[in-house]
Amino acid sequence: MAVYTDVGDQELEAFIASYDIGYLTSFKGIAEGVENTNYLVHTDANPYILTLYEKRVHEEDLPYFLSLMEHLAARGITCPLPVRDREGRILRELAGRPAVLISFLEGVWIRRPDIVHCGELGKALANFHLAGLDFPMRRENDLSLSGWRSLFDDVRAAADSVIPGLRGVVADELDFLATQWNNDLPASVIHADLFPDNVFFLGDKLSGLIDFYFACNDMMAYDVAVCLNAWCFEPDASFNITKARALLQAYGQTRHLAENELTALPVLARGAALRFLLTRTYDLLNTDENALVKTKDPREYLRKLRFHQSVQSYRAYGLDSD
Amino acid sequence: MAVYTDVGDQELEAFIASYDIGYLTSFKGIAEGVENTNYLVHTDANPYILTLYEKRVHEEDLPYFLSLMEHLAARGITCPLPVRDREGRILRELAGRPAVLISFLEGVWIRRPDIVHCGELGKALANFHLAGLDFPMRRENDLSLSGWRSLFDDVRAAADSVIPGLRGVVADELDFLATQWNNDLPASVIHADLFPDNVFFLGDKLSGLIDFYFACNDMMAYDVAVCLNAWCFEPDASFNITKARALLQAYGQTRHLAENELTALPVLARGAALRFLLTRTYDLLNTDENALVKTKDPREYLRKLRFHQSVQSYRAYGLDSD
Repeated sequence: MAVYTDVGDQELEAFIASYDIGYLTSFKGIAEGVENTNYLVHTDANPYILTLYEKRVHEEDLPYFLSLMEHLAARGITCPLPVRDREGRILRELAGRPAVLISFLEGVWIRRPDIVHCGELGKALANFHLAGLDFPMRRENDLSLSGWRSLFDDVRAAADSVIPGLRGVVADELDFLATQWNNDLPASVIHADLFPDNVFFLGDKLSGLIDFYFACNDMMAYDVAVCLNAWCFEPDASFNITKARALLQAYGQTRHLAENELTALPVLARGAALRFLLTRTYDLLNTDENALVKTKDPREYLRKLRFHQSVQSYRAYGLDSD
Repeated sequence: MAVYTDVGDQELEAFIASYDIGYLTSFKGIAEGVENTNYLVHTDANPYILTLYEKRVHEEDLPYFLSLMEHLAARGITCPLPVRDREGRILRELAGRPAVLISFLEGVWIRRPDIVHCGELGKALANFHLAGLDFPMRRENDLSLSGWRSLFDDVRAAADSVIPGLRGVVADELDFLATQWNNDLPASVIHADLFPDNVFFLGDKLSGLIDFYFACNDMMAYDVAVCLNAWCFEPDASFNITKARALLQAYGQTRHLAENELTALPVLARGAALRFLLTRTYDLLNTDENALVKTKDPREYLRKLRFHQSVQSYRAYGLDSD
């Protein structure tokens, strides 16, 4: 949760006036999203989200993310749509930051997803992957195996101060993944961060996906593995196989998961767990104490990693073999 | 800026369903307000603010604040109006906290108020005071002279670690105010915290007042003095006499400031500056570093206090004598 950049009145007024969206009636910082500054803007016509891009989002990546939203929306994926100003521009500058006005997406993110939400998510994720297949731009996943190695280099010395023994666990896991990671599975655009707070629902129906700022080109099954981690564990860290089954079955009904994707799932899930274990450890060690961000507990992802390490086959995720 | 209390899905759903306000379409934490948790709630019909009361707001004071909003709204003051649930209740409980749903007020708070905004503020403050005259409930100002003394007791030992010399300055000022503070000026309900972020504008027109959680019965001229502090200094700490004149003249055109109120202004302004100097010092010394609150700089109010100490008469605030 964060508002990093405050926007001056006159700047804001001039900014809003450069769009054909009516006059400003409200402007409030939103306490969600840890990467960027988000304001909820009401005009007399509609609500919008104004995003100012902060650290971690590289400006050179913004055209990829913004074009992706337009691409997805054109293919029927419900997601925020960047609004063009009177000159047709999407990417602007405000308060010294890259800034984009996007459409407001109705829906509420689910704090405690249930089985029905996991099914909805699986279907939406598969549709997202299918819609991404013909997206013409490319962006590497800088938070895959080699990215984890550099993150580990950054946190290695202090890792055991975060969780005793963490350094050895991560070193061993990176060695394991180096021999097991298979980059040859079917790829598309992946969301790469599809946690519950990035998925909106109206009642029990999924109403849209948001926050594409980790999106990249990578294996679709890895995205599934991220979601298994993010959606299918209970607060007590136990794995909920029923939620996983709902997610995977709904995904598979929209986009068939090939046998080699299924076989790779346990390794992909270990990689996904390691990814969030490492970034959370990094954030904990590098958060300016003045930053208005609640750092997340890396231990949650160590427990998830240990679960996936114990998994013998994808059947542990609730699927029978074909 | 703060969201302290997260609300569960099913709790929220049941809560919203207990009001006759349509179905929930969006629910976002707002990164404004340092005392309470605020969510912006959209239903298919309207936007609302959901407030969960945290520390500092005493539950026994809530009926005063909530009745005051209803009283003011009935007298034409634009302010949020508490919404009654299907059983007619205003004050509810949600996520273990006292909770109230209030109407959404259009407008934007002005980061850098100009002369025209100070004039609008003066008029609105006077109307607020007039509307409060027949409010039947009473609440003492616990942040007046005796309250400042107990705050000083709490911070005395560590005061010089916040600002070198602060302890002596505050001790001397409290001694001075003890001899000069006059409690006999005309009283009404005062807002007591009418900073720019509690005053909304649409364009250059004031559209409403919010956040009545410091409201109490006290001298109206003290409220004016709070606003002189909050609205009429520039970022470089210099006093802007033109803004003060605009504020006081507009106030006086709606509610006449008597000669004894004017004469008391420099002392009241010193008291108001001391009040925020003390609470900011206290907050700095007592903020849990995990709290998602940006503490404000007490030095700003030390500089303001020094300015008012140098003032010889209310003419320094831009008014000529009658």
